[in-house]
Amino acid sequence: MNKLKKLKMGMIGGGPGAFIGAIHRNAALMDGLIELTAGVFSSDPLKSKQMGEELMLDPSRVYASYDEMFANELLLPIDERIDIVSIVTPNHVHFDTAKKALELGFHVVLDKPMTLNYTEAKILYKCITESQGLFCLTHTYTGYPMVKQMKQMIQQGAIGTVKKVYVEYPQGWLYRLLEYENKQASWRTDPKRNGEAGCFGDIGTHAFNLAEYVTGLEVVQLCASLDIKVEGRFVDDDGVVLMRFSNGATGVLTASQINTGAENNLKIRVYGDAGGLEWEQELNNSLTVRWPDKPAEVYRAGTSYLGSLAKANTRTPAGHPEGYIEAFANIYRNFARTIYAKRKDEEPVSEWLDFPGATDGIRGMAFIQKVLESNASHQKWIPFSVQLD
Amino acid sequence: MNKLKKLKMGMIGGGPGAFIGAIHRNAALMDGLIELTAGVFSSDPLKSKQMGEELMLDPSRVYASYDEMFANELLLPIDERIDIVSIVTPNHVHFDTAKKALELGFHVVLDKPMTLNYTEAKILYKCITESQGLFCLTHTYTGYPMVKQMKQMIQQGAIGTVKKVYVEYPQGWLYRLLEYENKQASWRTDPKRNGEAGCFGDIGTHAFNLAEYVTGLEVVQLCASLDIKVEGRFVDDDGVVLMRFSNGATGVLTASQINTGAENNLKIRVYGDAGGLEWEQELNNSLTVRWPDKPAEVYRAGTSYLGSLAKANTRTPAGHPEGYIEAFANIYRNFARTIYAKRKDEEPVSEWLDFPGATDGIRGMAFIQKVLESNASHQKWIPFSVQLD
Amino acid sequence: MNKLKKLKMGMIGGGPGAFIGAIHRNAALMDGLIELTAGVFSSDPLKSKQMGEELMLDPSRVYASYDEMFANELLLPIDERIDIVSIVTPNHVHFDTAKKALELGFHVVLDKPMTLNYTEAKILYKCITESQGLFCLTHTYTGYPMVKQMKQMIQQGAIGTVKKVYVEYPQGWLYRLLEYENKQASWRTDPKRNGEAGCFGDIGTHAFNLAEYVTGLEVVQLCASLDIKVEGRFVDDDGVVLMRFSNGATGVLTASQINTGAENNLKIRVYGDAGGLEWEQELNNSLTVRWPDKPAEVYRAGTSYLGSLAKANTRTPAGHPEGYIEAFANIYRNFARTIYAKRKDEEPVSEWLDFPGATDGIRGMAFIQKVLESNASHQKWIPFSVQLD
Amino acid sequence: MNKLKKLKMGMIGGGPGAFIGAIHRNAALMDGLIELTAGVFSSDPLKSKQMGEELMLDPSRVYASYDEMFANELLLPIDERIDIVSIVTPNHVHFDTAKKALELGFHVVLDKPMTLNYTEAKILYKCITESQGLFCLTHTYTGYPMVKQMKQMIQQGAIGTVKKVYVEYPQGWLYRLLEYENKQASWRTDPKRNGEAGCFGDIGTHAFNLAEYVTGLEVVQLCASLDIKVEGRFVDDDGVVLMRFSNGATGVLTASQINTGAENNLKIRVYGDAGGLEWEQELNNSLTVRWPDKPAEVYRAGTSYLGSLAKANTRTPAGHPEGYIEAFANIYRNFARTIYAKRKDEEPVSEWLDFPGATDGIRGMAFIQKVLESNASHQKWIPFSVQLD
Repeated sequence: MNKLKKLKMGMIGGGPGAFIGAIHRNAALMDGLIELTAGVFSSDPLKSKQMGEELMLDPSRVYASYDEMFANELLLPIDERIDIVSIVTPNHVHFDTAKKALELGFHVVLDKPMTLNYTEAKILYKCITESQGLFCLTHTYTGYPMVKQMKQMIQQGAIGTVKKVYVEYPQGWLYRLLEYENKQASWRTDPKRNGEAGCFGDIGTHAFNLAEYVTGLEVVQLCASLDIKVEGRFVDDDGVVLMRFSNGATGVLTASQINTGAENNLKIRVYGDAGGLEWEQELNNSLTVRWPDKPAEVYRAGTSYLGSLAKANTRTPAGHPEGYIEAFANIYRNFARTIYAKRKDEEPVSEWLDFPGATDGIRGMAFIQKVLESNASHQKWIPFSVQLD
Repeated sequence: MNKLKKLKMGMIGGGPGAFIGAIHRNAALMDGLIELTAGVFSSDPLKSKQMGEELMLDPSRVYASYDEMFANELLLPIDERIDIVSIVTPNHVHFDTAKKALELGFHVVLDKPMTLNYTEAKILYKCITESQGLFCLTHTYTGYPMVKQMKQMIQQGAIGTVKKVYVEYPQGWLYRLLEYENKQASWRTDPKRNGEAGCFGDIGTHAFNLAEYVTGLEVVQLCASLDIKVEGRFVDDDGVVLMRFSNGATGVLTASQINTGAENNLKIRVYGDAGGLEWEQELNNSLTVRWPDKPAEVYRAGTSYLGSLAKANTRTPAGHPEGYIEAFANIYRNFARTIYAKRKDEEPVSEWLDFPGATDGIRGMAFIQKVLESNASHQKWIPFSVQLD
Repeated sequence: MNKLKKLKMGMIGGGPGAFIGAIHRNAALMDGLIELTAGVFSSDPLKSKQMGEELMLDPSRVYASYDEMFANELLLPIDERIDIVSIVTPNHVHFDTAKKALELGFHVVLDKPMTLNYTEAKILYKCITESQGLFCLTHTYTGYPMVKQMKQMIQQGAIGTVKKVYVEYPQGWLYRLLEYENKQASWRTDPKRNGEAGCFGDIGTHAFNLAEYVTGLEVVQLCASLDIKVEGRFVDDDGVVLMRFSNGATGVLTASQINTGAENNLKIRVYGDAGGLEWEQELNNSLTVRWPDKPAEVYRAGTSYLGSLAKANTRTPAGHPEGYIEAFANIYRNFARTIYAKRKDEEPVSEWLDFPGATDGIRGMAFIQKVLESNASHQKWIPFSVQLD
Repeated sequence: MNKLKKLKMGMIGGGPGAFIGAIHRNAALMDGLIELTAGVFSSDPLKSKQMGEELMLDPSRVYASYDEMFANELLLPIDERIDIVSIVTPNHVHFDTAKKALELGFHVVLDKPMTLNYTEAKILYKCITESQGLFCLTHTYTGYPMVKQMKQMIQQGAIGTVKKVYVEYPQGWLYRLLEYENKQASWRTDPKRNGEAGCFGDIGTHAFNLAEYVTGLEVVQLCASLDIKVEGRFVDDDGVVLMRFSNGATGVLTASQINTGAENNLKIRVYGDAGGLEWEQELNNSLTVRWPDKPAEVYRAGTSYLGSLAKANTRTPAGHPEGYIEAFANIYRNFARTIYAKRKDEEPVSEWLDFPGATDGIRGMAFIQKVLESNASHQKWIPFSVQLD
């Protein structure tokens, strides 16, 4: 009898003090479908061991390098070895780790953005399409139930034809030159580890992904203007991108890390010719729906009247707020459910397949590339598309 | 003995169903400094008479044309004739009325934008500077106490050097082709009555004025992209303007009349290198102040801790909300106080002088002009300045 | 021909520094139906004169006492004398002024609560019912358009049978012994000028009035518990009243002046067996409507979908916030319209008649009386009703 | 060497469709300190098996009864058997399961309220104090970081002496007779399974616990008034409790399940003589701090300026909202850390010990008992205390 077992995960990155690695673990574990079995948590083998100990892992499954992890795990019987590789390192490590893992047949969860640059992204994209392993990119914000509700309502025509999109991602933590005293700031402003785009590589891509995700539209032209607002910094920390979508709709995307005092209130508003939808992360369990001649409605997570996509991505009844970790966990849970379905040779239900993947990844990297190009140009609009070769 | 008397006001425009005329009257009357004495309320003499009757005016002071009003009032003894002409017509009537009134020595309150186009504005500007009459332009939103608090805090360095400005003016009422069934929509989308710019002439100028007002900075370059989103419309109903300010700060200004379901929630956020300020009209009695390493603060109208500018522009104690009409009334009250001071040959206190005037007017019209120019250009940035000849 | 003229108002109280007097003037003047013609603004004749001068009144109409005002005004021709007496003094002056004014045939606007005590109230109530003059009591909060919408929706059965009412009135300004340094605090905590109930006389009555107004129900039993939280104070500054309504619904009313830092956010929530309604003064232009199995709706002032009562009590389109002064002005405007209708021997439209009057006044004073009785009793519930003899 | 291992948990209850059981599992698993190893998920052995299978448990660890679970687990080697028993059944099963588990030396996590009635509670309380096992009661809401911040600020005197407490727990889901069609409604309104108090047993106790937790004060007198608002129901579904605290402060506690349309927005406000604190669950990552003469502050979860208690109970940086499951997980994580400390014979840090336990349990059951007593009495106030015999 072929009983289901928890999926085993090996993590790359996520050592002491790494914010996003810890979140990945919370998210992966929460729903009881995945267990953390192995890992290489730091490029420093000693730190990796210590982290493994803290996480109460079997010491023989805590590795000094990802090559070692891949090699050793492949020697284990198939039902003991890791199923999923979760990559939560700075961006410059994404490409090699993900590529190797996929080539060896592991399923891969990769933190965004996909790679250090567009060139790497195109290769990795090809690799994903050819791999047996499934691939998932953690654009967290599309994991929120009310973001999914927004997508589904637009898809179903609730607000008519989309005409206008505003997406803003305001942060303030880099309001001064923090890079020499803060580890996060150090790598996220370092072109070698983060990529050529600073703010737009880190959070601009989230905003772009969110806009395309909820509208179901693709950007076809853009006009970007980036700035370095803090003297001594090497990458953009603020900017704006104007967008034209495939259906003629237009959009404005702002992202900043120098909105002093701002935390992380990613916000998106979409207006169609029949209504409008507004969501912001700080009030993530609500979705405001606006109408021309009747009262605005506030849709709430966990309620009976939501669509299938939101419903498949909640855990609590209305009024019991879910948050960032649950949004993250929705990605892991959908990814795990899709893996299970694949194992059982079943078609995953469409709601489970709703997690970000290769296309999100390659489009995000193209976005970074094109934003940098546009920023360097005196011309207002430039075309945008993904070209794989 | 030279006793003070209420200032007498004659109104041009503001007939039956004209929203903004009624607001001007509420605002002018509220504080007991001004009385409505005369008027020509419609280009249709009969309607003007009817309106005058409804307003319980002396029928002999209700006129069929503004020329008639000017002529007749000037025949009256100086302490009986009107002191102030309030012009609340569609834009194409602003120039001639204001110019004549000023040339005849009346004080003028003019609804925004100043004129139909930049050419007229330059002439009127010169006329204002040469007139005995005082001039006031009703950019209402700078009348809000917490907007004034924002200005004063920035002026006093509370948030350090301004780095970033976001201003947005979302409306949704023109989400469909309303111009053939709604009087307001009809003239506001008619280039001949409203000017070449639709949305940006009507509300874009408000947003621009607000941004320059609160920051005390001037825009020196801009990049605009406007759209007509509703088929059959003759003027822009949506757009975005990127701005560069005199001190190197940058800004994003969005305005729309097709954000379906949006009402009128004008919002401005300004970030300096020491803190941030956020205000929105729907919550007009609050001002959010953000800091890098301590809790955000919510400043409230009517409190003891506000600066002199906010304090001089409130009527109620904290927790007794003032609104749009009071913001409007602040402009009228400051204008009236300045007139009184002038009469008494006294220097008005600086807080009273804080009402929008000729410079706001000419800059607003230059903004409209440059936005249209930029929109027509393939070049990203164009310079912005006011040139009087 | 009998043309309409503005109604002439004489004010009693409202001298220098008196908050509520100035608000009454703003409210009365705003809509152009009433003019301030006369007044006795202080018990100190010199101060009264100075205030009259500041208000630019004819000095011969500024009086040293209300008896003088009544006598002199009655000597004037009927179309010159005051029509309305507006009484904005501390509570201990309400009874004699209002009674005399009504007996002399003036219309009376009286600030709440009606009188110093229940005994006076019963006499004044009788006097009102017998007078030619119309009477209006400024329970401001029922003047808000969205409060009126709430009333009308309940009346029309939108939320089914009312089951539960919560009303809260939190203030913090008396969090310490302010009475020896602040004029407002001094009389509002003085049993001789304010009445035996402090907080419950001042703001508890507003909350009670609001609850009965919006529900259309009457309290029939109550259970009160009051406290003096600040040592050295002579009257209650905090408390709670449990209520049972005529239809079996129950309610909780809290009021406090020692909720340190709280401003004035009067809030009411009413739940029926089909839906719920929630309103708070800080967000006075919104009304939240809750339903069991569909999204909450946010009704907004100035919109097309509101009922007749809200519509008759707004001035601005949606998104242009009105506030406290407009709520106040709604009372004055409705009162004035009713007076005009009476003069023209017409039936006032029902929306104009929706202002607080004698019944609100007598019930409010009975509330104060019964709350004090209940507070002194060990018994949980006591009956509540108005008994005129 | 004695390496740490994950704590093993056996669950009682939490079968198919049981909301709170699933939440317990999310919360227990999230932080990687606890694994679900065994369980009896339903009183129906078949359903229990199915649930175990769905949870991918070893079938030999899925039991038909809790007696069987206890017996079998005790036969296992100590490092394989369960460490923690998590009880998530309806209330009438709490007593016997918890008592037996504790007597057998297991650590116990028990869902609130502690037992079916006060008599059981007193026995269980004694049992807890005598047991080797540690005990934890999941009053979830005290797990929120900003609730803990509130507690710590009050403890440190930030708002001076506490004078007033308002706590409200509004729900609407039982607005009609749902008990014959909804499983949750069925047992929660059944005196035999839920206890004599309905709403006040279910959510009133949460509100009571929260009030005592954040203030650090004990209720010493109360006055309760409960109602059955829906015909045909057997237990209270709405009510109010007035409270007097040990230091003379007073409080108002409202709880309802018939606030039609209300979800679950538990809210608490505490005012001292120097400031005020306000928290509500819908905005759980914020804490509003009010001051008499300066702007209100909004403290935010995940920031640098918070106290040790909040900091020890978050996972994400500011602006990445945590929610209900994380609040729940904080209880499990603190409980687990305390168990680990005990095992290592170390003193747990005080922040870990901050989870609800036996005292919360017994006081909660006394609250239910006294509320029922007071409700049945005509006397206004009755004394409140816990008496163990």
